[in-house]
Amino acid sequence: MKAQNIIEGIDFTNFDATAHNPSYASLTNNFENVHQLKDYCIPVNAYFPPPLIMEALYRNIPYALKYYPSSNESISNDIAIFSDIANPNWICAGNGSTEIISWLNSIFIKESLFVPIPSFGRWIDEPKSLGIKVHTLQYQDETDQFLSRAELVYQVRKSKAKNLVICNPNNPTGSIFSRDDILWILAQLSHLENIVIDESFMDFAGVNPPSVKNDVASYSNAWVIKSLGKNIGLHGLRMGFAVSCEENIKKLRARLPYWNVNGVSEMLLRFIRNEHEEYVESLKKTEIDTHYLSISMESIPELNVFPSHANFVFVKLDDDIDGTQLRDRLLKNHGCFVRNCSNKLGSNKQYFRIATRSHYDVDHLVRALKIEIAMLRVMTKLADLETTK
Amino acid sequence: MKAQNIIEGIDFTNFDATAHNPSYASLTNNFENVHQLKDYCIPVNAYFPPPLIMEALYRNIPYALKYYPSSNESISNDIAIFSDIANPNWICAGNGSTEIISWLNSIFIKESLFVPIPSFGRWIDEPKSLGIKVHTLQYQDETDQFLSRAELVYQVRKSKAKNLVICNPNNPTGSIFSRDDILWILAQLSHLENIVIDESFMDFAGVNPPSVKNDVASYSNAWVIKSLGKNIGLHGLRMGFAVSCEENIKKLRARLPYWNVNGVSEMLLRFIRNEHEEYVESLKKTEIDTHYLSISMESIPELNVFPSHANFVFVKLDDDIDGTQLRDRLLKNHGCFVRNCSNKLGSNKQYFRIATRSHYDVDHLVRALKIEIAMLRVMTKLADLETTK
Repeated sequence: MKAQNIIEGIDFTNFDATAHNPSYASLTNNFENVHQLKDYCIPVNAYFPPPLIMEALYRNIPYALKYYPSSNESISNDIAIFSDIANPNWICAGNGSTEIISWLNSIFIKESLFVPIPSFGRWIDEPKSLGIKVHTLQYQDETDQFLSRAELVYQVRKSKAKNLVICNPNNPTGSIFSRDDILWILAQLSHLENIVIDESFMDFAGVNPPSVKNDVASYSNAWVIKSLGKNIGLHGLRMGFAVSCEENIKKLRARLPYWNVNGVSEMLLRFIRNEHEEYVESLKKTEIDTHYLSISMESIPELNVFPSHANFVFVKLDDDIDGTQLRDRLLKNHGCFVRNCSNKLGSNKQYFRIATRSHYDVDHLVRALKIEIAMLRVMTKLADLETTK
Repeated sequence: MKAQNIIEGIDFTNFDATAHNPSYASLTNNFENVHQLKDYCIPVNAYFPPPLIMEALYRNIPYALKYYPSSNESISNDIAIFSDIANPNWICAGNGSTEIISWLNSIFIKESLFVPIPSFGRWIDEPKSLGIKVHTLQYQDETDQFLSRAELVYQVRKSKAKNLVICNPNNPTGSIFSRDDILWILAQLSHLENIVIDESFMDFAGVNPPSVKNDVASYSNAWVIKSLGKNIGLHGLRMGFAVSCEENIKKLRARLPYWNVNGVSEMLLRFIRNEHEEYVESLKKTEIDTHYLSISMESIPELNVFPSHANFVFVKLDDDIDGTQLRDRLLKNHGCFVRNCSNKLGSNKQYFRIATRSHYDVDHLVRALKIEIAMLRVMTKLADLETTK
């Protein structure tokens, strides 16, 4: 029995080509069939930028396309204003946080790297491909994907790794360390060459999130990385940044291409840099949606839902239902595009990372999940009958 | 006597901050005062993309902003189609050609680099800042900025440099080597670690330009770099690429950020990839404009105009008139933003690189040049009288 493909014009090939999902453009013939898909993969802020700013952006985009963008220093200035960072000389603007990650992996991180897993793919695959030894520590179901700071420091020391990455909140588990925890870890591990706190999802961690963005410049070996694209709802643009002490930022800027941030990103940043109130409002709305998503997932008995401190929810599917089959059936029969974590080290096909969406879209997903879980159960029983006949 | 600033709202500060001109956004308060400036700095294709494609782009831009771009492999495929390159596995897509340049400078080019000068700033400043020894060979007025292949090979060998960059056509001199010359140079210098042919302006070098883009994959040490942004008229977007053998491209891709090209660039590339006829037409129109620019500059007796094989013209101003003063007066009194080459190694304030523009804009510049050269002459005479009094 093969699931019928009711989503026309969607290209299902290349699903397992990389550690990331296939792009929307490649799935939907350059967005022609985009309305037939509901995306639950990309954890993006749906309530920002405000419509008036998008209108201004569209009106002015011809200039942004026609002229060279400004220097990294100038763009870092705008980031400091938008992201409340005390000193623009602590900031290096990136073409997405992945640009910063690639330069850190290539130039700063040498020999070995410690990463709690599962983690963001670029912190695992890229260092490995560059010959860096990757040491890991597993987030556990038993502790609700929570990791103690003492355990982490103990394991890092034991591994003798020279560098450490902590995603805070962690992607995809949604786990978080407090600001005190991170500062304690930084103090304990001052002998490491680099400690990177990847705060890509920090802005979604509630009121007063435990960011150390204004602390790291006091440490010679510490970095914060932030993704702006996801936070402001436009990650097709590629925008992210690093925070560190002035000396580290100078070294990083010397490596980066001169015009690394494109003109459209720069223009948008100028438009939003003083929109703090609207931005905080959008984060609050996202938090409410995440709460609704968690509760809704908990209504499905076959899912184990872990506590989330980001704009996605990490869930585990019961072992008697196949995660890959469920992912494919959700896509083919309901147009629900969900992130199965089978291609992540320290995870498997039973784990899903569901991005926060509107109540309407969450309800749609819950219905689809219930139908397809029931269908997979029935199919398993039929197959069992077949074999015992 | 100080020139009056008749261009309101234009910020003249920071002109000498870097080896590049200040950005348009920073000069014009995020493009608010853009109509008061006429740009003769950026050598960009004014006849591409066709209006229908720009309309399609604007209509679809919200998707490009909202979703992750595709992988480098997928974008390289589109580049192969648009740029007539036989094998997409020879291509690595870049966030502008400067991204490729930065990675080559950081990872591939070691110890020493030979660069004919004056050259594109990123081939001089960046290697120097990374501790790479830069060897140079001067393009000369006496030979009309022409360099013989034999002289180049002789000087490279003598220098013992391990790497070589040839900008072909050269930026800013507009000089060019034939395809035969480049292939001969590659054969003579097969012992070098890397030979980079920077063909950023090659598409503007007339019918059948002497590109080696489909030859370099046969050499283990050769690269072609191309800039797409300038060629297609939208360099705010950042788009460029490298061509080399599959092994080199694999090594380069392993370094690059996963989503290095933004979604808007990717979408545009899909729209234009089959528009070869329109593209060739736009290049022909640009060539006619360049010819008109050359002739017009020759009408000014104080300018020595060098032969151009790109979409800009390199000129030298007579020594009795100050190049910096002329640049400032053109900007303040006529809104003409021209590229003075004072901050380029192997050049000085008497050299200008004038980008190709419409006949109307060229006529405007010629009038402005004649007025300001005459004014500077009068002012010099008055000052002389003052001192002899």
